[in-house]
Amino acid sequence: MDIEKANQQATTRMIEARAVLTEIAKAKDVIPGMKDNLLLHAGPPITWERTSGPMRGAITGALIFEGKARTEAEAQTLVESGEIELEPCHHHQAVGPMAGVTSASMSVYIVENEVHGNRAFSNLNEGYGKVLRYGAYDDEVQQRLRWMEDVMAPVLNDAVKASGGIDIKALLSEALHMGDEGHNRNKAGSILFLKALAPHIAKVSDDNETSATVLKAIGDNALSVLNPVMAACKVMADTAHGIAGSTIVTTMARNGTDFGIRVSGLGEQWFTAPAQIPKGLYFPGFGDEDANPDIGDSTITETAGIGGFAMAAAPAIVTFVSGSPKDAVNATMEMYEITFAEHKHFTIPQFEFRGTPTGIDLRKVIETGLTPRVNTGIAHKNAGIGQVGAGLVRPPMQIFEEALVTFAEKYGI
Amino acid sequence: MDIEKANQQATTRMIEARAVLTEIAKAKDVIPGMKDNLLLHAGPPITWERTSGPMRGAITGALIFEGKARTEAEAQTLVESGEIELEPCHHHQAVGPMAGVTSASMSVYIVENEVHGNRAFSNLNEGYGKVLRYGAYDDEVQQRLRWMEDVMAPVLNDAVKASGGIDIKALLSEALHMGDEGHNRNKAGSILFLKALAPHIAKVSDDNETSATVLKAIGDNALSVLNPVMAACKVMADTAHGIAGSTIVTTMARNGTDFGIRVSGLGEQWFTAPAQIPKGLYFPGFGDEDANPDIGDSTITETAGIGGFAMAAAPAIVTFVSGSPKDAVNATMEMYEITFAEHKHFTIPQFEFRGTPTGIDLRKVIETGLTPRVNTGIAHKNAGIGQVGAGLVRPPMQIFEEALVTFAEKYGI
Repeated sequence: MDIEKANQQATTRMIEARAVLTEIAKAKDVIPGMKDNLLLHAGPPITWERTSGPMRGAITGALIFEGKARTEAEAQTLVESGEIELEPCHHHQAVGPMAGVTSASMSVYIVENEVHGNRAFSNLNEGYGKVLRYGAYDDEVQQRLRWMEDVMAPVLNDAVKASGGIDIKALLSEALHMGDEGHNRNKAGSILFLKALAPHIAKVSDDNETSATVLKAIGDNALSVLNPVMAACKVMADTAHGIAGSTIVTTMARNGTDFGIRVSGLGEQWFTAPAQIPKGLYFPGFGDEDANPDIGDSTITETAGIGGFAMAAAPAIVTFVSGSPKDAVNATMEMYEITFAEHKHFTIPQFEFRGTPTGIDLRKVIETGLTPRVNTGIAHKNAGIGQVGAGLVRPPMQIFEEALVTFAEKYGI
Repeated sequence: MDIEKANQQATTRMIEARAVLTEIAKAKDVIPGMKDNLLLHAGPPITWERTSGPMRGAITGALIFEGKARTEAEAQTLVESGEIELEPCHHHQAVGPMAGVTSASMSVYIVENEVHGNRAFSNLNEGYGKVLRYGAYDDEVQQRLRWMEDVMAPVLNDAVKASGGIDIKALLSEALHMGDEGHNRNKAGSILFLKALAPHIAKVSDDNETSATVLKAIGDNALSVLNPVMAACKVMADTAHGIAGSTIVTTMARNGTDFGIRVSGLGEQWFTAPAQIPKGLYFPGFGDEDANPDIGDSTITETAGIGGFAMAAAPAIVTFVSGSPKDAVNATMEMYEITFAEHKHFTIPQFEFRGTPTGIDLRKVIETGLTPRVNTGIAHKNAGIGQVGAGLVRPPMQIFEEALVTFAEKYGI
């Protein structure tokens, strides 16, 4: 049982994987196992009765979008009856930020890793505030989703194809030298994304007004690249999964109720415990009492060595998630203590181009007593409201403890 | 004679000035004193016989562009006969990177400061390598200049006007939080510029192919925003000029032969000495022996508190200009020793959002023995070749000494 060797293999695969955005297509046409009566959601598996407000809001909104429900009560009936099924995005090679609810007819980014031959998916980003992924679902939300689906997605797909594919891993490497950490701060990445797409958007669309509106939607949304970035991190992290004897964490995800992890050497088993409330900065008029527990698959960024792990590259993020630039440096320094490798392609100029801490090692989390640091958005705890802030959070220690016990049992250590 | 008060006034004006790009127009239509037989150039005044290779190349290229000459020999005859006049950009509220040669029918950016009612101008950026501003002037250079003038400039002007103006100072504040220093690294600024313009470019042009080509030219040129940034720095620095008793340096500029400065309290007088050869990194196939002495008006960035003075905000720049991220931090720290103020709007996240060192104080340069730090491109010393690298340089100390002596004489200190 050579854990070191297994972890070496897992992290090398994760670091060497490529991640190229090649296409945008409807979920039901490309996501394995996707079907009309299935909703994908963030985090580990969950039933309706245990879902939080923002997850319920997003499920309701997705069912309204699909024409299957009109109200939260109708959504509840459909889900509780089993007519509509819920499964984690992560069970379908997909990831979604916040509630992460993805329905059959929504378009998704396809990110491919030609090195290991796998692919991953993520839905489109709606922007900030009152949006589906934060649990809002009213007419304004529906109209935006409709426009994204009918107008933006086809233009983006044509533009991505005309571009020959966009190397999201290379884009991330560059963005980390431009003050992004790739999770809560994707300011540079989103305009690098715009830069790559803009000439093609102008060329593929016959209608100037449409081109202008899509260019504005991508350029003005400082999170527009978050979803392709998450799919890129998923495609990289997945290459590290399923290696016998590896203690590397290959999934961290929250459904708004539970925080769950999966471990390379422990197959498809989730280790879960109640998610915590993030600490952070709130939009005017909101406070701690409004916050839902931690939610979303966006922790795939930290799993792949960026996000909270690359905070030192993004000192200006503290204006958004709280803390000081010094804290940002310390966050990254601390994560070197619980990771197995340093990334070859994601580097931090401020640390003399040292690679980001990559590949959370279950053993080191337990040894040091340090859980991973996560940057996150904060959703209102009630359905229908949306984002109320952004902040920092850590997973519960017990899931790492349980995973290590299971690891010891499985491998007879 | 209250020097402190005068310097306070000068730096406050410089810091409070606004800088909004409002229009693009032909030089002869908007630059005060511009005329058909005049070429503006970077740095202090110079005669043909004292010009360096890249300046001669750029003069030749501009005269070919204007249809007034076909060869370097013809250009020389025109200039030496007085038929074509040479004057510094700085004598016409303008700035130009490297050779900075601007002719009557070239388009220029107009940047306005509504706080103090002044404006400044800068030509359009051609990209890297074999370009006019580095002294290249062959057909390829001419074709690009022609395309910029006939195709790009009208589209940009329409887009800028449709946007309602682009706040270049705000863009710079943001870019300094995204790993730019605003002089040699304008990667973030250039795509922020793209972001602001893209929807308008798509809308104003009837031809998709043209929109696409302009979007690509702006997005792919990581220096596309340098020229508006320089005009912004010029419009800010000019507000600090002409204040009786002020020892603040309001111009630093090089013509490829001499480095010149002007001082707020000393009117239009230039203090000049031979420019030095930058130390830096060369493109493959080139080395120190190919380098021309320091050239260009782009030192207006350091004059206004960014560029080499904001190096700490841009640690990744060292891959381009040489040195280590630690050197970048030290560069900014050193500049606090020779400046009078700290900028309110340009801040460095890594320094807990401390303002950049702003307003070079002649007295402090002499007291400390530290000359300003400048980031710069490196031109080949011969006409017709172009850029060969990028690096760091400092002005000769003697120009500061001479200026201080003159200051003491003028003010009877």
